[in-house]
Amino acid sequence: MKQDSGHTTRNVKTSGYGLLDSIYSPADVRKLRLEQLPELCEDIRRFIIDHLSVNPGHFASSMGAVDIIVALHYVYDTPTDHLFWDVGHQAYAHKILTGRKDKFPYQRTKGGISGFPSPLESEYDTFITGHASNSISAALGRAIADYNTPGKENSHTVALIGDASISGGLAFEGLNNVANNPNNLLIILNDNEMSIDANVGGLHAYLSELSTSAKYNKWRARLYNSFRRRGVMTEEGKGRIQRFFNSVKSLVSGKQNIFEGLNIRYFGPFDGHDVIKIVKILTELKDMTTPRLLHLHTVKGKGYKEAELNPAAWHAPGLFNPETGEKIKKHIEGSPLPWQEVFGRTLVELAGQDPRVMGVTAAMPSGTSVGLMLEAYPERTFDVGISEGHAVTFSAGLATGGKRPFTAIYSTFLQRAYDNIVNDVCIQGLPVTFCIDRAGIVGEDGVTHHGLLDIAYLRCIPNMKVAAPADEETLRNLMFTSLKSDGPMAIRYPRGKATTPDWQTRMREIPIGRGRAISVSDDAEVAILSLGAMLPEARKAKEELAGRGISADIYDMIWVKPLDTELLASIAAKYKAIVTVEDGILAGGFGSAVTEWCRDNNTDVKVRAVGIADQWVNHGTVAELHHDNGLDSEGIANAACAALAELK
Amino acid sequence: MKQDSGHTTRNVKTSGYGLLDSIYSPADVRKLRLEQLPELCEDIRRFIIDHLSVNPGHFASSMGAVDIIVALHYVYDTPTDHLFWDVGHQAYAHKILTGRKDKFPYQRTKGGISGFPSPLESEYDTFITGHASNSISAALGRAIADYNTPGKENSHTVALIGDASISGGLAFEGLNNVANNPNNLLIILNDNEMSIDANVGGLHAYLSELSTSAKYNKWRARLYNSFRRRGVMTEEGKGRIQRFFNSVKSLVSGKQNIFEGLNIRYFGPFDGHDVIKIVKILTELKDMTTPRLLHLHTVKGKGYKEAELNPAAWHAPGLFNPETGEKIKKHIEGSPLPWQEVFGRTLVELAGQDPRVMGVTAAMPSGTSVGLMLEAYPERTFDVGISEGHAVTFSAGLATGGKRPFTAIYSTFLQRAYDNIVNDVCIQGLPVTFCIDRAGIVGEDGVTHHGLLDIAYLRCIPNMKVAAPADEETLRNLMFTSLKSDGPMAIRYPRGKATTPDWQTRMREIPIGRGRAISVSDDAEVAILSLGAMLPEARKAKEELAGRGISADIYDMIWVKPLDTELLASIAAKYKAIVTVEDGILAGGFGSAVTEWCRDNNTDVKVRAVGIADQWVNHGTVAELHHDNGLDSEGIANAACAALAELK
Repeated sequence: MKQDSGHTTRNVKTSGYGLLDSIYSPADVRKLRLEQLPELCEDIRRFIIDHLSVNPGHFASSMGAVDIIVALHYVYDTPTDHLFWDVGHQAYAHKILTGRKDKFPYQRTKGGISGFPSPLESEYDTFITGHASNSISAALGRAIADYNTPGKENSHTVALIGDASISGGLAFEGLNNVANNPNNLLIILNDNEMSIDANVGGLHAYLSELSTSAKYNKWRARLYNSFRRRGVMTEEGKGRIQRFFNSVKSLVSGKQNIFEGLNIRYFGPFDGHDVIKIVKILTELKDMTTPRLLHLHTVKGKGYKEAELNPAAWHAPGLFNPETGEKIKKHIEGSPLPWQEVFGRTLVELAGQDPRVMGVTAAMPSGTSVGLMLEAYPERTFDVGISEGHAVTFSAGLATGGKRPFTAIYSTFLQRAYDNIVNDVCIQGLPVTFCIDRAGIVGEDGVTHHGLLDIAYLRCIPNMKVAAPADEETLRNLMFTSLKSDGPMAIRYPRGKATTPDWQTRMREIPIGRGRAISVSDDAEVAILSLGAMLPEARKAKEELAGRGISADIYDMIWVKPLDTELLASIAAKYKAIVTVEDGILAGGFGSAVTEWCRDNNTDVKVRAVGIADQWVNHGTVAELHHDNGLDSEGIANAACAALAELK
Repeated sequence: MKQDSGHTTRNVKTSGYGLLDSIYSPADVRKLRLEQLPELCEDIRRFIIDHLSVNPGHFASSMGAVDIIVALHYVYDTPTDHLFWDVGHQAYAHKILTGRKDKFPYQRTKGGISGFPSPLESEYDTFITGHASNSISAALGRAIADYNTPGKENSHTVALIGDASISGGLAFEGLNNVANNPNNLLIILNDNEMSIDANVGGLHAYLSELSTSAKYNKWRARLYNSFRRRGVMTEEGKGRIQRFFNSVKSLVSGKQNIFEGLNIRYFGPFDGHDVIKIVKILTELKDMTTPRLLHLHTVKGKGYKEAELNPAAWHAPGLFNPETGEKIKKHIEGSPLPWQEVFGRTLVELAGQDPRVMGVTAAMPSGTSVGLMLEAYPERTFDVGISEGHAVTFSAGLATGGKRPFTAIYSTFLQRAYDNIVNDVCIQGLPVTFCIDRAGIVGEDGVTHHGLLDIAYLRCIPNMKVAAPADEETLRNLMFTSLKSDGPMAIRYPRGKATTPDWQTRMREIPIGRGRAISVSDDAEVAILSLGAMLPEARKAKEELAGRGISADIYDMIWVKPLDTELLASIAAKYKAIVTVEDGILAGGFGSAVTEWCRDNNTDVKVRAVGIADQWVNHGTVAELHHDNGLDSEGIANAACAALAELK
């Protein structure tokens, strides 16, 4: 294994990991003796450390969940029994144990396995993962489906959810419905007291407090299982025993558990790293026929000291030296900042100029860089946890009080706040600025993380404005302009590096719904209408077309809504063909907006739209995926040629 | 006031209601003596009964909230203090007291006041209402905004939320964030133990249980306030006293309150109809500076016996005789059934044929008619409460277990499950059938309830199929076809009556993505491409065009996605112009899909799209609103003429 700055030699060695060498499926795990499991957990951790140091991924949470995962596959008959992951970034051990060990070196690369569990990839992955808080609802559906299917009544369903995910409204809706219909769902709460960043909210404080009643719960679990073993737990008696337990518990702990308040049996908290004990507990809980929750405490990064000490920094650490824990930085002095950092620094500037400015993030202060404002203006910055819907409606509330919230959410997660955008912000026309991070193709995180739909799902909302900057200066001007104007505005920008190290331009107000010409000539036949960060590819396409003997002009449209119809009218009059370029799905997107305008304005200019076709996009590098979807200079040039060819 | 079957003479009499006659704003309420308030509540109830009997609206919940509303305006300095309503269908007394008494006879009619509080209508309405569960998040935003605005630190913010709304995930996200930042929010839980239909879920059971600890809470509220009055409640001492109270409470009740688990002070439950007592409690709570929740018990329909006895039937009872409580039915024997009833009865048929069929509704068993299946197959039908996100992800879970969920949600509320549709259903291509009720213009419920965006927000999702039936037979065939095919499908149909009393056709599988010609002639210049229930207007438009000397053909496209591209190719070749017709927003909608196809297939046929323009639509009858938006025969005919004119 050799590394030099920025370049990695992939480590494809998947043997030499002790007990793990003989594991090809969970059936092999179940052949081990119980006392061998701690050793297997160690081997898996070594495997994860070695491979993630050269092929980056989600490190700390995967290290923390190793023991739970080994215990689950030891006790449950997977894949006949069903495991539902939440987010799924903690499931590397699961992938390694379920026949994907040899593919692990290629995870998150094009053609390789995904970074998240996916039913499209393995029969051991029952449900799609990537977006938080869905595991309880989905697993409940499966548990009830099995309960109602002859021959499957006794199969088991387990949902594994973290303490950050459980604060999402969807998880609460799931919990609130768990006890409505007969089912045998087991929910495991993997409580590491962390989101990607520090956890927030009343529930978090509550979970810490629960630990104080651990003694009683241990006692009850023992008593309950002893009743079961002696056969005194009749159907009729169950209710009585439950009530009895609740009474005893009230006496002992003086508290009613929040989960028991929702009619879900509660067990815990227990040590989530004591694999032998977890196996014993799961075995006891396995054949209970009521919904129940097992609360396990884990440590993020468990087994790798540097990660245990600073789990947030080791959430997805990138490349590192496995021996020393030293991170291998790829940032080169003088290169452009990431878009999100330009956003974050600009937000701090605006907050310094205008006391109305507020920052809002949903559990992503580092990812979005809202953390920079949280440091500078803690009382005006709100991390609401994994609660995108609340983030948006809360922002609307702030706006009714004269504040100017800048609400930064990844494009794919903003889907969770769609009604909040429509109903709570746009009907009232409130001045909330949506800073849509990770818009477009995001690369390695794959299908659940690409931000491809936001143009289409926002463009149809009356009162909404949608813009996309091609460079830092425009991003800053758009943020400034939103602050100076009325009503909602969405600004979308991609993951990754922006365009120039000299980003710190003086901000100015720019006209809403006005694009700009980038390069105009007298003889051009085709106009490339670029949106946002696709501009560099548009420029390259112009070169490429010149090589093919075709002259093309470039416009940076900036605004999807309102469209620059004046500029569009002049373009439609001047050129034979238009090629629109957007990093998003084509159906209903920016190209559609241009096409609708042409339709409604009786123009005959030929339009071709370059963007993502009507299909899901898997993982790979951003460049690979752009190329595969015709969303690069070559694809743009080809579209221009095709449009002109039709005219002949 | 005179009534004859089906026709009403509007009652415009707004005086003769005792104390209410002298009330023109909340300031007038505050001039009354405390002991006069019960009388005012009686007068308001008489007013509501008289007017709603002839001008239908949300009756039972509005009757139940009268006393709370009077008390709120008596204690709080509205509109300087802010009231946030949840859903808002309980707020008639608020409208009557805040200067809209004389406009009340015209509520929910075109040009009249809305049926829900709306900041576009009155400064007393702080925030948009209509969609459940948003009040806590929005009010929290306002409370924090005021807390951070010099001069406004002492203004008050109150959120009023029902026990059904509080089960929505958004409300939980709000509650979970309430205690994170300093603010003085008061949440009032109006607990009538009812959603529109019976309430469901663990939280509901939990709320009932809370009542048992009433004695302690009364005692604590008295002690707390006595401390306050004596000035012994110092900032420093508060935490100590809080901890002391919590300990005492644990001793007395043996329980920890779920809200206190989230660090929200809890008071109650108290009688929500004892207006004098509510005033006293609110006065005591008003100047507390920590987030707190007041739990009030109310009776839906309070003050009108028939409604108290059967609150679900009196949620929105339509016309009735105020003296006898007899409802005035408008249904005429032999007329068509509502779309939703055809859906519900068909669902029961399918469930009888195929044990995989499951029914899912989010708190709308009557509204959607899923209630019919709930009666026939209770163990295969799930009312998950106000939890649209859970409804969809739960359905996805059912589908992974081989079940075939039919998930019926109103178009506007399905916005709350957008990410669940995208991430949990469509990425995996699971066979969930979305039965989208109230699609298109819904009429009197207005801006928050029209279902205008679903075509645009669903069409952009890969793997999704979107269809709209023009008649009962097609609705039934689409449901049958969804059951026989793979992957997700959305079927949208409007509010109101379908087309024929003879709806009970034999179901058959129809080809996916295949439209049909309705009337074709040799000489037609223009093709009307109708989607769904717009077909009758398309037929009328054909007549109207014939009168103008223009021959038009009609196609019922049925499918938005996949589009019938074969049919479209033949249409594009045959006609000079195409008019698309859809009951939805134009940006990204069905017309856009047709236009995109024309763009990508090098056809020069002239296309005009008829649908809703880029603006919000207020309330009125469906016919009025369709007409105003050019979405009727006249509008279609005009579009056809405009398209043809451009060719000349």
